[in-house]
Amino acid sequence: LLGQIANTNAQEISEALADIGVDVLHHSVVGDNKERVVAAVGRALDRSDAVIVTGGLGPTPDDLTREAVAEALGVAVRRDESLVAYIKEVFARLGRDMPESNLKQADLPDGAVAIPPEGTAPGFHVQRDDKLVVCLPGVPWEMRAMLVKDVLPLLRERAGEGMIVSRQVLVVGLGESLTHDKIVDLVDAQTNPTIAYLAGKGVVRVRITAKASGEREALAMIEPIESEIRSRLGSAAVRGTGRSLEEAVGSLLTEKAASVAVAESLTGGLLGAAITSVPGASRYFKGSLVLYSTDSKSAIAGVDQEILMAGTVTQDVAIALARAAAERFRANLGLATTGVAGPAEHGGEAVGAIWVAAFFAGQGYARKVRGDGDRESVRAIAVTAALDLGRRLLEGTL
Amino acid sequence: LLGQIANTNAQEISEALADIGVDVLHHSVVGDNKERVVAAVGRALDRSDAVIVTGGLGPTPDDLTREAVAEALGVAVRRDESLVAYIKEVFARLGRDMPESNLKQADLPDGAVAIPPEGTAPGFHVQRDDKLVVCLPGVPWEMRAMLVKDVLPLLRERAGEGMIVSRQVLVVGLGESLTHDKIVDLVDAQTNPTIAYLAGKGVVRVRITAKASGEREALAMIEPIESEIRSRLGSAAVRGTGRSLEEAVGSLLTEKAASVAVAESLTGGLLGAAITSVPGASRYFKGSLVLYSTDSKSAIAGVDQEILMAGTVTQDVAIALARAAAERFRANLGLATTGVAGPAEHGGEAVGAIWVAAFFAGQGYARKVRGDGDRESVRAIAVTAALDLGRRLLEGTL
Repeated sequence: LLGQIANTNAQEISEALADIGVDVLHHSVVGDNKERVVAAVGRALDRSDAVIVTGGLGPTPDDLTREAVAEALGVAVRRDESLVAYIKEVFARLGRDMPESNLKQADLPDGAVAIPPEGTAPGFHVQRDDKLVVCLPGVPWEMRAMLVKDVLPLLRERAGEGMIVSRQVLVVGLGESLTHDKIVDLVDAQTNPTIAYLAGKGVVRVRITAKASGEREALAMIEPIESEIRSRLGSAAVRGTGRSLEEAVGSLLTEKAASVAVAESLTGGLLGAAITSVPGASRYFKGSLVLYSTDSKSAIAGVDQEILMAGTVTQDVAIALARAAAERFRANLGLATTGVAGPAEHGGEAVGAIWVAAFFAGQGYARKVRGDGDRESVRAIAVTAALDLGRRLLEGTL
Repeated sequence: LLGQIANTNAQEISEALADIGVDVLHHSVVGDNKERVVAAVGRALDRSDAVIVTGGLGPTPDDLTREAVAEALGVAVRRDESLVAYIKEVFARLGRDMPESNLKQADLPDGAVAIPPEGTAPGFHVQRDDKLVVCLPGVPWEMRAMLVKDVLPLLRERAGEGMIVSRQVLVVGLGESLTHDKIVDLVDAQTNPTIAYLAGKGVVRVRITAKASGEREALAMIEPIESEIRSRLGSAAVRGTGRSLEEAVGSLLTEKAASVAVAESLTGGLLGAAITSVPGASRYFKGSLVLYSTDSKSAIAGVDQEILMAGTVTQDVAIALARAAAERFRANLGLATTGVAGPAEHGGEAVGAIWVAAFFAGQGYARKVRGDGDRESVRAIAVTAALDLGRRLLEGTL
């Protein structure tokens, strides 16, 4: 609430729930104030079948989720002996004295089932009538581990007999309204599978979700819709099941036992950072030359002075950078970005002017792209455009 | 609510409000459903003096913020003729026919004051009794522009006579609980100025906020507290008024007319991306060598094979990389990262093992850091540690 961090926990949990077909209708954020936490949990219980709470499970006085959830449920707090033993054991193992206050973390609402800690804070879930409250630590990686191991299986089970399966089609270069125009009749006609989509950073995600008696049955319902959608969207639809463009590019490179290297100007390292955000990227990513100054484009990447004289945001510079990346790192694919991120124009080029390029199988390819929005948005659009150029070359759909 | 994006609008608005001393007590997120939007706005009005809404101001049928806010306020919607003229003019300028449905964007709750569009969607604010509702577009850069130009001045004015001023002290390398221990008595004793802090990615932000009759008076109240905090925190407190470590490093480099270049391994480009996220970074940032493969560390940065034989996550490799960055790019300061981001150990080194290094005025410096959490968290910690090493060298506080 002070604006120091974005609520990525709400995002991650929502995405995971969408994947298993659970509708998320509300996010609420309140501070470490017992009255407001009790009210928020109570309101959430009134309007939902399940409530997931994150944060406030530490040992300090402002950690009051346990007490607040107990109060919202109208039950007492009791000490969980298995958690007491666990906490004592952790301190013993570290050879440290345990402050008595730490045992607070073993207090759970009556009737709750403990979720063993991933880091230091235990989680728990508790049922009232037919409603479920799940409390997870606020630290993102601790939350994530419990979500996957404990919470999703629990919710899948409660979702009843059927199996919910979803597949996602990534769409690049069409935009949300053109994507919508091409498939709106399918979206409107479907109830099972359902089709939903959302856009961000130049990528539209079309999600097809089916509910059936088993996984095979659900996939059989998804497949004809997915292939109809793919055929209407053509090469704008990224092949495969990657959850992001960088994951899709990584899968294509792995499939072809090929490697990639990049050279970046306006993106300042974001293109390499995107590629290496995928676990296992070291199998195919060699490295990146981030050449922010004009000097470095010639001194480090060997771009001709003559080419640079005509400006740094040109097709020729982009291709020379992509080629330098491929050659210097001995990679099969070279990708490059150059452009003006803003806030001010640069060398006569307007903010948002972008060239991306690729060097693949001895040949250069380039595309001009227009970035809109602020500095961050322009840079994100450049990363997406460069990855998509590489994706199309690897797929053979350029 | 589908988890495709994090609610960064709520974060940005909250941070801007904290800066002017406005307390944010609730965030609520609901989908494009009129009943739920009306209920959410009504509930927010009941418990707050001001409500800021983002999104749902476009021309399509699912954009229903205008109607929902009017219903929550119990007023009708009327067409704003100045906005009609504005929208018609935009289409005329683009030489395009205007679909009649676009005029929907000129409909505002009765009594509302229009905020002219930054992109395509107008915003507005409207008062009921002594309460204020502000509606801004969902696109982050459009929201941000209106927030700064229109909303913050409006709220400052309503906050009354006094002037609210805040200063921030960035703390690196101490962690939240040690920072707390060192200044808890100051935090507890103060009511004006107030002191608040929050931690994220290895940085703790201590914010001192004063309310006084004018800016000079407010700063005079802040200064003794700030200098007491800085003296207790020592070199962990970053000098100056930078809002982030990368901004602080940029200011130090600008002040000294010095330049920086980096060489990165596990961070894959994130260090360069962080430095270049600051507008105007081209004044001091030369570039980065992202050397993900072991081969590239010798072939591109010229790190001795012998040094690499002893492992890639070592003090010697980190310093050799920092030196190569400084020398290849002819920069005054070279910074480097090497380590294991995970999910699996690498070359006998555990996940989270990190060395960062700097090369400055002919000498190498290195630090061993331990990254916890997942891949993203480990990489963010490495970026912070490398920037902080550079910051201390430039400040002379190493």
